[in-house]
Amino acid sequence: MNKVLLLNGPNLNLLGTREPQTYGSDTLDDLVKLVTEHAAAKKIEITASQSNIEGELVDLLHDARDWANGVIFNPGGYTHYSVALRDAITAIEIPVVEVHMSNIQAREDFRHESVVGAVCLGTIAGFGVTSYILAVDALAAHLA
Amino acid sequence: MNKVLLLNGPNLNLLGTREPQTYGSDTLDDLVKLVTEHAAAKKIEITASQSNIEGELVDLLHDARDWANGVIFNPGGYTHYSVALRDAITAIEIPVVEVHMSNIQAREDFRHESVVGAVCLGTIAGFGVTSYILAVDALAAHLA
Amino acid sequence: MNKVLLLNGPNLNLLGTREPQTYGSDTLDDLVKLVTEHAAAKKIEITASQSNIEGELVDLLHDARDWANGVIFNPGGYTHYSVALRDAITAIEIPVVEVHMSNIQAREDFRHESVVGAVCLGTIAGFGVTSYILAVDALAAHLA
Amino acid sequence: MNKVLLLNGPNLNLLGTREPQTYGSDTLDDLVKLVTEHAAAKKIEITASQSNIEGELVDLLHDARDWANGVIFNPGGYTHYSVALRDAITAIEIPVVEVHMSNIQAREDFRHESVVGAVCLGTIAGFGVTSYILAVDALAAHLA
Amino acid sequence: MNKVLLLNGPNLNLLGTREPQTYGSDTLDDLVKLVTEHAAAKKIEITASQSNIEGELVDLLHDARDWANGVIFNPGGYTHYSVALRDAITAIEIPVVEVHMSNIQAREDFRHESVVGAVCLGTIAGFGVTSYILAVDALAAHLA
Amino acid sequence: MNKVLLLNGPNLNLLGTREPQTYGSDTLDDLVKLVTEHAAAKKIEITASQSNIEGELVDLLHDARDWANGVIFNPGGYTHYSVALRDAITAIEIPVVEVHMSNIQAREDFRHESVVGAVCLGTIAGFGVTSYILAVDALAAHLA
Amino acid sequence: MNKVLLLNGPNLNLLGTREPQTYGSDTLDDLVKLVTEHAAAKKIEITASQSNIEGELVDLLHDARDWANGVIFNPGGYTHYSVALRDAITAIEIPVVEVHMSNIQAREDFRHESVVGAVCLGTIAGFGVTSYILAVDALAAHLA
Amino acid sequence: MNKVLLLNGPNLNLLGTREPQTYGSDTLDDLVKLVTEHAAAKKIEITASQSNIEGELVDLLHDARDWANGVIFNPGGYTHYSVALRDAITAIEIPVVEVHMSNIQAREDFRHESVVGAVCLGTIAGFGVTSYILAVDALAAHLA
Amino acid sequence: MNKVLLLNGPNLNLLGTREPQTYGSDTLDDLVKLVTEHAAAKKIEITASQSNIEGELVDLLHDARDWANGVIFNPGGYTHYSVALRDAITAIEIPVVEVHMSNIQAREDFRHESVVGAVCLGTIAGFGVTSYILAVDALAAHLA
Amino acid sequence: MNKVLLLNGPNLNLLGTREPQTYGSDTLDDLVKLVTEHAAAKKIEITASQSNIEGELVDLLHDARDWANGVIFNPGGYTHYSVALRDAITAIEIPVVEVHMSNIQAREDFRHESVVGAVCLGTIAGFGVTSYILAVDALAAHLA
Amino acid sequence: MNKVLLLNGPNLNLLGTREPQTYGSDTLDDLVKLVTEHAAAKKIEITASQSNIEGELVDLLHDARDWANGVIFNPGGYTHYSVALRDAITAIEIPVVEVHMSNIQAREDFRHESVVGAVCLGTIAGFGVTSYILAVDALAAHLA
Amino acid sequence: MNKVLLLNGPNLNLLGTREPQTYGSDTLDDLVKLVTEHAAAKKIEITASQSNIEGELVDLLHDARDWANGVIFNPGGYTHYSVALRDAITAIEIPVVEVHMSNIQAREDFRHESVVGAVCLGTIAGFGVTSYILAVDALAAHLA
Repeated sequence: MNKVLLLNGPNLNLLGTREPQTYGSDTLDDLVKLVTEHAAAKKIEITASQSNIEGELVDLLHDARDWANGVIFNPGGYTHYSVALRDAITAIEIPVVEVHMSNIQAREDFRHESVVGAVCLGTIAGFGVTSYILAVDALAAHLA
Repeated sequence: MNKVLLLNGPNLNLLGTREPQTYGSDTLDDLVKLVTEHAAAKKIEITASQSNIEGELVDLLHDARDWANGVIFNPGGYTHYSVALRDAITAIEIPVVEVHMSNIQAREDFRHESVVGAVCLGTIAGFGVTSYILAVDALAAHLA
Repeated sequence: MNKVLLLNGPNLNLLGTREPQTYGSDTLDDLVKLVTEHAAAKKIEITASQSNIEGELVDLLHDARDWANGVIFNPGGYTHYSVALRDAITAIEIPVVEVHMSNIQAREDFRHESVVGAVCLGTIAGFGVTSYILAVDALAAHLA
Repeated sequence: MNKVLLLNGPNLNLLGTREPQTYGSDTLDDLVKLVTEHAAAKKIEITASQSNIEGELVDLLHDARDWANGVIFNPGGYTHYSVALRDAITAIEIPVVEVHMSNIQAREDFRHESVVGAVCLGTIAGFGVTSYILAVDALAAHLA
Repeated sequence: MNKVLLLNGPNLNLLGTREPQTYGSDTLDDLVKLVTEHAAAKKIEITASQSNIEGELVDLLHDARDWANGVIFNPGGYTHYSVALRDAITAIEIPVVEVHMSNIQAREDFRHESVVGAVCLGTIAGFGVTSYILAVDALAAHLA
Repeated sequence: MNKVLLLNGPNLNLLGTREPQTYGSDTLDDLVKLVTEHAAAKKIEITASQSNIEGELVDLLHDARDWANGVIFNPGGYTHYSVALRDAITAIEIPVVEVHMSNIQAREDFRHESVVGAVCLGTIAGFGVTSYILAVDALAAHLA
Repeated sequence: MNKVLLLNGPNLNLLGTREPQTYGSDTLDDLVKLVTEHAAAKKIEITASQSNIEGELVDLLHDARDWANGVIFNPGGYTHYSVALRDAITAIEIPVVEVHMSNIQAREDFRHESVVGAVCLGTIAGFGVTSYILAVDALAAHLA
Repeated sequence: MNKVLLLNGPNLNLLGTREPQTYGSDTLDDLVKLVTEHAAAKKIEITASQSNIEGELVDLLHDARDWANGVIFNPGGYTHYSVALRDAITAIEIPVVEVHMSNIQAREDFRHESVVGAVCLGTIAGFGVTSYILAVDALAAHLA
Repeated sequence: MNKVLLLNGPNLNLLGTREPQTYGSDTLDDLVKLVTEHAAAKKIEITASQSNIEGELVDLLHDARDWANGVIFNPGGYTHYSVALRDAITAIEIPVVEVHMSNIQAREDFRHESVVGAVCLGTIAGFGVTSYILAVDALAAHLA
Repeated sequence: MNKVLLLNGPNLNLLGTREPQTYGSDTLDDLVKLVTEHAAAKKIEITASQSNIEGELVDLLHDARDWANGVIFNPGGYTHYSVALRDAITAIEIPVVEVHMSNIQAREDFRHESVVGAVCLGTIAGFGVTSYILAVDALAAHLA
Repeated sequence: MNKVLLLNGPNLNLLGTREPQTYGSDTLDDLVKLVTEHAAAKKIEITASQSNIEGELVDLLHDARDWANGVIFNPGGYTHYSVALRDAITAIEIPVVEVHMSNIQAREDFRHESVVGAVCLGTIAGFGVTSYILAVDALAAHLA
Repeated sequence: MNKVLLLNGPNLNLLGTREPQTYGSDTLDDLVKLVTEHAAAKKIEITASQSNIEGELVDLLHDARDWANGVIFNPGGYTHYSVALRDAITAIEIPVVEVHMSNIQAREDFRHESVVGAVCLGTIAGFGVTSYILAVDALAAHLA
C-alpha cells in the first residue's frame, strides 16, 4: 500500500469558511475525509497536515522522506515566492503534485507564476476540491 | 450522455514518434482510444480532432458550441501566444480543460506562461497521457 | 467606383451570438449588409471575407492588391502578435484601416498594444458596429 | 439639439503652421469651422476650446458637465502621461471620443500608449482632419 | 497657533458629485469646514486652496514658505508623475503630509506608485474624509 | 466596546533598541501601553501580539476573526513579499489598517511596494509611534 | 543524392513585387530556380514549398521527416513568435537552416529576436537571395 | 543682433533660497543679470521668463517663434516626463539648448532620462550658473 | 575569546543526504564539528543553530546580540527574498558573513541575487564546506 | 583582385584547443589557411589578424579602410556589448560580415543579442568553420 | 597656469573622415589645435591623447593625477558600458568634463544612457567641435 | 608546489592611494607581498600581474594554462560586463577564484551582478585585503 502526505499551506485551515463562492463550503476536515476515502480505493493511505508556517511545511516535506511515496501539496500563498519550499521539494526526491483549488492563471492581480511548480511532477489547478481527487489519481498512476 | 471534444493542437499528431523520453511511445491514435474508453465508463462520448492550424482550432472550438458539453484541449505551442484561441474559448461558453503532457513550468526556456489557461476551467500539466485521463474526470465532475 | 475589402479576423464569425453586452446582437451578415449599404452611398463597393486562419487573412490581403483600393480590417485576436499580418499590410501598399468594435485600450488584461496598427493608415476602436461605418467614411475621405 | 465640446490640447494652436507634412495646412480655426459645419448637419452644436495647460483642460472638461452631451478631445502630448485628465474624464461621466490626427502607434519613439484612451468611449487616430469629422459621427451615432 | 495649508489637486473640486460610492457625498466645502473645525481644536489654523493646474500647486507650495508651518496635500492624479511637485516639496522644507481618500495601492490599473510621497513626512491613504482628519493630527503631533 | 488586535511583525520586538534615529527610543512595551491608553479613550480595547514568524502572524490574524472588530498591523519586512499575509487579510473580512513607522516610499533601496497594503482598509506610514495612534483613530472612525 | 525542402513562410510569395529596394526583383519562382540549379551542382535535390499559414508550415516540416535530409527555412513574420514552428523543428530531428534575406537585427522596430533560430542548426541573414545559396552550401557541408 | 529667450521652468524661481549647497546662492534675478551681461558681449539680447506651469512654458516657446533666434531652456522637473514641451520644441523649429545646473545623471533616484533633451540642439548639465553662460556661448556659436 | 553564531537556514539540516554531487557527503553535524574545531584554533567559540523557519532565524539573530561577536550565516532559499532577515541583520549591528556552499551566480534558474548579502560584511560562495572554514577566518581577521 | 580582412576577436586564438566539442579541433592557423585557400579560388586575397584587445580590433578595422574591400569578423565575446566596435564598423563604410562558429541564439545563458550585428551587412552563425567559408562566398557575391 | 588632459576615446581618431554630416570635417589634429589655442587664452595648457583601447584610457586618466588639474573626456562608444572608466574617474579625484559632439539622447537606437557621466563634474553634448570649446570654459570657471 | 596567478584588473594599480576609506592604505605591492608570503606557507607560489586592459587580462589568463594550477582574479570594473573575460575563464579550464575587496552587492548604484562570477569556482567579496588571503586558502583547499 502506498503512503501519501496530503499537505496544505497557509490559510487552507479556513477552508469552507472563507470566500465560499471561490472555495466552496467543504471544511479542511471534509476535504481530508473525502481525499482519504478516495485514496483508500486506490490503495493509497493518506496522512494529512496543514501549517501556516513556511518552515514547518519544509519540515513536513523533509519528514515525508522517511515514510511517504508521494506528496499532494497546495502551497497556498507561498506558491509565488518560496524558494525554500522549492529547494525542499528538490531535496526530498519524492514525487510531489502541486494542487490549487482555483485557477491561479486567472487571478486578477499579477501573481500568476508558481515558483514551486517547476520542480513538481505536475500541476492541477482550477477544479475546487476535485483538484485534490485528481491529484490522488495522478499519483496513483505515477506510482503504478 | 455528455459529449466532449478532445482537441489537440500543433505537433501532437507526431505523438509517440517525437521525443519519446518526454512524451512516451503512445501515438495520437492510442491516446484517443485510451481517452475514449475511459470516458465511456464515465458516460462521456469523445469526438477527437487534431490540427496544426491555429484558425482551424478556432473553427473546431466554435463548432463545438452546437453539440458538445465540454472540451479537453491541448493547445501545444499556441499555448504561449494565441489570443485568437483565448478569445474563442471565452466566446463559446463551454467549459474547457487545458491539458499538457509535460510540466510547462519546468521548460528550460522562458516560455512558462499560458495565454490560454486564464480563460479555461482549469489546467492539468505534467502527467503524460494521464493528464488527459484526469481531464476527463475533471470534466465529468464538473458536468455532474 | 472604389472597391474595398471588408476583412474580419478570428471569432468575428460569431458576432451577434457571442458576449452581446460587449459586441451587440448584429450578426456578421447584418454587419456586412449594413456596411455594404452605407458604402454604396459613398460610391464604394464592398467585398466581405472572414477567416479564423491567420495565413488565409494574409492571402486575402495579398489578393486585394489586384482589385481593391482599400481595406477595412478587424484583425481580432491576431491584433496583438501577428507580424505576418503586419508584413502583409506593409507589402500590399493599399491603405488599410484598422477597426475594433471594443476599446482595446480598456481591456482588463495587459494586451493593449496593436502590432498591426503601426502600419495601417489609422485606427478606429470602441464604437461597436459604428466603428466599421466610420472606417468606410475614413477610406472614402482618403481615396477622394 | 446635442451640444458637444471640441477640446484641443497642447501645441494644437499651431495647427497649419507646424510640420505641415504631418498635420496638413489647415489652421485650428479652419478645423473648428469644418467640424462645426459638419456637426450642424448632424444636429450637433460645437463649442470649441484649446489650451496648452493640463489643468485648464481639466477645468474645461469639468465645465462641460453642465451643458454638454459629449466631448471630442485631442489631448496632444498629455495623451501619454496625464492621469489628471484620465481622472477628469472618468469623473464627468459624459462620453468622450479621443482623437489624434496622426497614427500614434506609428511614432518613431517609444511613446505609443495612451493613458487617456482607456477611459474614453473610443479612439480615432491617423486620418488628419478627418479624424475629427469621424469623431462627430461617432458621437452622433452614440447619442442617437 | 500653527498655520497649515490644506492643498487639494486636480478633480478634487468635484468632491461629493463624482463617484460617490468611492469618495462619499461631502463636497470640497464640507471637507474644508470639517477639517478647519477639527484643526481649530488642535490650535491649528487652516487655509485651504484647490487647483487643477500642476504649476499653480507648485506656486501655492512656494507661497506657503512665508506663512505656514505645515501642509496637508492631496496631489490627485499628479501623484503618479509630478517631479515638479516633488521638487517643490523638497525645496520648501516645510513638513508635508500626503493624503488620499482612496487606497491607491488597491487601484485596478497599474499606477500604485507615488512620485510625491517619497519626499513627504508621511502618507495617509484609504480612509475617505477621515484621511484628512488624521493628517491634521499627524501634523499636530509633529509640530508639538 | 470594540476590540482590536494590535499586531506587530518581524524585528519590531527590537523597538527602542534598534536604529533609534529612525525608530525612536520607545520600546515595544512602551508602544503597546501608549496605544492601549489612547484606544481606551476611544472605547477600544487593545490586545497586542508580536511575532517574527510569518505563519504565526497568519494564525494571529485568523484567531482575530472570533473576537476582534479590527486589526492594526505593521507587517515589517514581510510587507514586500508576503502573499500569505495578503491572503489571510482577504480571508478574515475584518478591517485591517496597515501601519509603518517610517516612510516606506523613501527607503533607499528599491523595495517601496507593499504587497499587503492593497487588501487593507488603508495605510498610514511615516509618523513614528504616531502612526499607530492615527491608526486607532482611523479604525474608531470606521467602526462608528 | 541528398534531398532538401526549401520552405518559405508568409509574404514570401510576393517576392520580387514587394519592397524591391529591400528584397530585390527576383520572384519566388526565380529564387526557387536559382537555388535548385545551385543545389544540383552540390548533388542536392530541392523540393520547394511556400505557405502563408503557420500550421501548413508545421505540416510541411512534419512531412519532410519521411523524405528529406535537411530543410532551408525562411519563417518570415512567424520568426518572432511561432513556438509551434519551433516545436516542429525540434520534433523532426532533421537539420534546419534558418534563412533571412534582410538583416533582422537591423530592423527599425524592436523585433530582433528569432524564436525559431535557437533550435536550428544555424542562421544566415542579410544577403538577399544569396542567403539561400549560402544555406545550400551550409547544408551540403553539414551533410558531407 | 540675435534675440534669445532664457526660459526657466518649475521651482527655479526659488533659486538662491533653495538647497544652496546644490544650487548656489545666486537668485533668479542674479542669474538673469549675469546671463544678460554675458550675452550682450556676444551680441545677444536676452529676454527672460519663468513659469511653474507646464502649459505656460509651452505658450512661451510658441511666442518665441515670432521674435527669437534661439532658446536657453531649463525645464526643471518637467525634464523627465513632458511630452508637451518636447512637442513644442519640435514644433517651433528654433534651436533650443537644454540647461541643468546639477548633473542629472548623478541624481540618487532613478530619474536620469530627459524626455525633452532628444529634440534639443544639445545639453549642458552640472556646472551650476556656469551652465547658462556656456549655453549662451553654444547658441552664439551655432547662430554664427 | 570571541563567540560566534553559526546559523544555517532552510534545508541545510538535510546536508550530506541531499544532492551529494552538489553539497558533498558531510552531514550538518560533521560540518558543525569541523567548523568548531577550526574556530577553536582561532580562539573562536562556535554555537550552532539551524532552522527551516524564517522567523526563528530572525529570533536567533536577535538573541545573538546578547552574547555573540559575529555570525556566520547561510540563509539557504531565504537568500533570495527575505527582507525580514535583511532587516534583522541591519538591526543587530554585529558583523555577519554570508556563506553559500554552491556558487549561487551559477544556478541555472534566474535567482542569482541575494537580498541578504547587501547588509552583510561580505560573502563567500562556491567552495562547499570550505566556504564555512573561510568564513571563520574572515571573521577572525575582522575581529582582530 | 579583392582584398579582405579576416578578423578574429577574443579567445579565438585558442581555437582547436578550447572546448573542441563546440568549436572543433582546427586551430586558428588551420582556419586561416582554409579560408585563404577557399578565398583564393574566388579571387579574394585574405589578410588575417586576431586580437583579444577590443581597441586593437577597432584599430584593425580602421586600418582596413586603406586597403580592404570587405571584412569577415568574429567579434567573440565583444559581440554582446561593444558599442566601440559597432561605431568602428559604421565609420569605415566597408561591408562587414559577422561570423560565429556556434549558434549564439542557442546559448544557455541570456546573452543572445548582438550589438555589432545590426550594422553589418549580414550574419552567419552556427556552422563551425564552415561559417567562415560561407562568409567568403557572401562577400564575393556582394562585391561582384 | 592650469594643465588639462584632453582625452578622446574610440573612433575619434577618424574625426573629419567619418560621417562628416554628423561630425563635421575637422580632423582630430584640427580639433586639438583649436582647443589648445582657445585654452591658452584662458591660461590653460592642453595635453592631448587619444586611444581606442579602454584600458589605455584608464592608464591615461591615472597618469593625469600627477600633473593635471582637470580632464576633458569624450569616451566615445565606451560611454555606454565602461564601469572601468567610471571607476577610474572616481579614483583620480580630478574634475572631469564629459563631452560629446552629437546629442546622445537623440540617437536612433536605445543607447542613451551614459555610465560615465554620473561621476563627472558635468556633461556637454550636441554642439560638434564647440562642445570641446565649452568644456574648456566650464573647466576654467570651475578651477577659478 | 602549486603555482597560482594573482591577477588584478582595472584601477587596482591605484590601491592604497584611491578611496582609502573603502580600500585601505595597502598598495598593490604590499598586497602582492602579503599574498605571496601567505601562499608560501601553503606551498603555493604566486606570480602577480595587473592590467587595465581587458584584452591583456584575457591574454594573461590564456598564458596561465601553460604553467598555473589556479587563478585568483579581481576583475575590477570589468566584473559587470566582460563576456570576453568570462569566455576566457571557461576556455582555460583552470580553477579561478573571483575576489573583491568591497561588497559588490552593497554598491549604491545598480551594478550588483557579476558576469564573470558564474564561471568561476566561487566568489569572496567584502573583506578588503583579507579577501585575497581567503582566496589563497580556498584554492589551497581545492587543489588538495
